Amino acid sequence: MMIHNEMTKLLKIKYPIIQAPMAGGITTSKLVTATSNAGGLGMIGAGYMTPVQMQEQIKEIKKLTSKPFGINLFVPSPFQVSEDGIKAANQALNPIRQQLNLPHTDSFSISDHQEVVATFMEQIKVVIEEKVPICSFAFGIPPQDVIAELKQHNITLIGTATTVTEAVENEAAGMDLVVVQGSEAGGHRGGFINPEQEGAVGLMALLPQVVDHIRIPAIAAGGIMDGRGVAASICLGAQGVQMGTAFLTCVESGAHKVHKEAILNINEDQTVLTRAFSGKWARGIKNHFILEMEHHEVFLPDFPVQNTLTQDIRKAAAIQDNPDFMSLWSGQSPRLAKSQKVEALMENIVAEIKQINWNI
Amino acid sequence: MMIHNEMTKLLKIKYPIIQAPMAGGITTSKLVTATSNAGGLGMIGAGYMTPVQMQEQIKEIKKLTSKPFGINLFVPSPFQVSEDGIKAANQALNPIRQQLNLPHTDSFSISDHQEVVATFMEQIKVVIEEKVPICSFAFGIPPQDVIAELKQHNITLIGTATTVTEAVENEAAGMDLVVVQGSEAGGHRGGFINPEQEGAVGLMALLPQVVDHIRIPAIAAGGIMDGRGVAASICLGAQGVQMGTAFLTCVESGAHKVHKEAILNINEDQTVLTRAFSGKWARGIKNHFILEMEHHEVFLPDFPVQNTLTQDIRKAAAIQDNPDFMSLWSGQSPRLAKSQKVEALMENIVAEIKQINWNI
Repeated sequence: MMIHNEMTKLLKIKYPIIQAPMAGGITTSKLVTATSNAGGLGMIGAGYMTPVQMQEQIKEIKKLTSKPFGINLFVPSPFQVSEDGIKAANQALNPIRQQLNLPHTDSFSISDHQEVVATFMEQIKVVIEEKVPICSFAFGIPPQDVIAELKQHNITLIGTATTVTEAVENEAAGMDLVVVQGSEAGGHRGGFINPEQEGAVGLMALLPQVVDHIRIPAIAAGGIMDGRGVAASICLGAQGVQMGTAFLTCVESGAHKVHKEAILNINEDQTVLTRAFSGKWARGIKNHFILEMEHHEVFLPDFPVQNTLTQDIRKAAAIQDNPDFMSLWSGQSPRLAKSQKVEALMENIVAEIKQINWNI
Repeated sequence: MMIHNEMTKLLKIKYPIIQAPMAGGITTSKLVTATSNAGGLGMIGAGYMTPVQMQEQIKEIKKLTSKPFGINLFVPSPFQVSEDGIKAANQALNPIRQQLNLPHTDSFSISDHQEVVATFMEQIKVVIEEKVPICSFAFGIPPQDVIAELKQHNITLIGTATTVTEAVENEAAGMDLVVVQGSEAGGHRGGFINPEQEGAVGLMALLPQVVDHIRIPAIAAGGIMDGRGVAASICLGAQGVQMGTAFLTCVESGAHKVHKEAILNINEDQTVLTRAFSGKWARGIKNHFILEMEHHEVFLPDFPVQNTLTQDIRKAAAIQDNPDFMSLWSGQSPRLAKSQKVEALMENIVAEIKQINWNI
C-alpha cells in the first residue's frame, strides 16, 4: 500500500489522508506536523486566526517538519448585521451568560464585511510570504485575482464542496483538488450555495455524483475514521480522504479534554446540525446550548456575527470544563473515535486497508 | 465476480443485491421477478396490502419465477388518534383537496392499533401459508412468538435498523440479516427507536459502527445506485446492498411515470425528510405538499393516521399527473438514476465492480 495517484502527487504526500483544518485551537503544530511526518497532510485551521497568529504557527511548523503541510482559510461572504438583530440575539444569550457567571451584554463591536475581507487579504499575503505549499478554502471560492496570485506562487489550492454544483464551480475557478463534504461531517458545512441543512447529502450518495461531473481529484470528507472509510471512498471515486473527528481525539490535538471525552462517550445518532454557535450550519454533539438556541432559531444572526456574540460563552464554558455550552463539533462516527497518537491512527488505517477482503 | 458470502448463502441468490420492498404499487410482479431472475432478490412491498392482495401477488410471482423472492411487512406500533387531531389535520388538508377538486372531509374512519395488529397477524399467516422464503420488516421487530413461528417454517428473516442499537436488537430478537439504512435512503425511515430526523446517520458513518456490534450479515441501504456503491458498502463491512430508487426508475417498476420523471430530473440536494405524507419520517422530493405541511408540522397525526388522511389527495394527484401533491419518494442519488430494464441495471453493477481500480 498505498495509492499513488494525482492527489498524492499534487500534495507530495505518501498516503492520501488529510487532517482536516479544524478551526479554534485544535490544529496545534504538534497535530499538523505529526500528521505530515506520518505521511499524511497536516493542516492549520486558520479561519479565525489573525495574520500574526498564522505567521507564528507556520514558522513553528517549519521547524518541526520538512514535509508538506497546508492551511485553511474562510472565504468571506456578505452578511447582515443590525443593532436590533444583535440586541435580540443578546437577549437570548444573556440568561446563558448568567448561568456561567458572565456579565450581561447588550451591544458588541462587530466587524463589517469590508473589514472581514481586509483580514482575509492579509491572511492570503501571509500564505504567500511564508510559501505555505497548500491552501484550502471553506465557505466559498476566493476572487479570481487571489486565485491567480496564489497559483503564480505555486501554491496548490483545495476547494470545498457540499453539492455537485459547488464542486463544478470550484473546478471552473481553478482549484487543483476539491474536498467533497458529506452530511456526516463534524464542524462547519463548508459549502456556499445551498446553505440549508435539509439539503445535506450523505457521502455515499454525494461522492459518485460529484466525481461524474469533475476532472480534478475529489477528496472524501464526513464520517471517515479508519481504513474501511478510506477504501470505501476510493471505491466511490475519491482519490483520498480528509478526516476531522479522527484527528480531533488524537493526543496531539488541541481540542479541550472535555470535548475529546464527549466524543469518546456518545453514540452515532447524538450529533445534530445547528446554527446556534456561529450562525452557519455545523455538526456537533447536541447539548444544552443547542437546545436553548432552538427556540431562537429564526432570530439567529448570520455568520460571523453569531460566532462573535457566543465567543465569551464558549470561552467561559471551556474554562469551567462545562460541556453544556461548548461547541462540541463531531462527525457521525464517534463510536470509531479513539484516544491515540497520530502515528497509530495513520498506521492502523494503512493496516486496515490491507486487511479488506476484496474477494470479488 | 461475485461475492459468495453468508448473505448470498442465506438468501440463496447469486448477487448480494436486494430490490427494496417499496410499498404503494411500485413492486409489481414484473419488477420482483425481473430482479430475482437476474440473480438478485426481488421483494414485495406489502406494508399497505390486504392479506388477499398479498396472496394474489405471491401466486402471480410464483408463476413468473422459480427463484427466491421476499416480502416486507410493517410492524405495528402503538399510535395516538383523537377526533380533535383528525379535525385539525383535515383543516390543513382541505385547502389542498379544493385545489385537486376533491370534496372536503371532516372525519375519517381510522383503524385503531388493535385492528392494525390483527391485519399484521393475517399478513404473517399468508407469508407462512404461501411459503414465502424471505420476510423482512420495517418500523420494528415482530413479537417473539411471531418470529418463532416464521423460523419454524424456515422463513429467512431480515430486520431494518437505522442505528447501532436497532441493529443489535434485531440480532438479539433472532433476525437472520439486517438492513442498515442510512440517511440517504428514499422513502420511509425503517427504524423504531430514534424517530427524529435530526438523528439520521449517513451510511458511510453508520455501516462500520453497526458491523462492529453485530455478527449477522449487514445489508447496506441508502443512496446506493451502482457498482461503486456496492463495492464501497462491502469495504465498510456490509455483505451486500438493498437499493430502492435505482429499481424505482426501472421500466418494470409500477411507480407513476410522473414520479419516475421527477427523479430523473432533480439534483442530489432536492430531497428532504418529511412527515407530511404518512406521519412517519420519509425522504422524498421537496414539492408543494411538503412545503404546505411544514406550517402544520406540530399537529401532524401519527402514522398510519396521516397516511390514511392523505390517501385521497395522493390518489387524485396521481390521476391528474400532478407531482405537486404526490409522495415522490427518492434517495439522495437521483443523478445516478436511469430509465432502464432491471437486467441492464444488474449487469451494469456487476461490470462496474469489476472495473474498480483497486491498486493498493
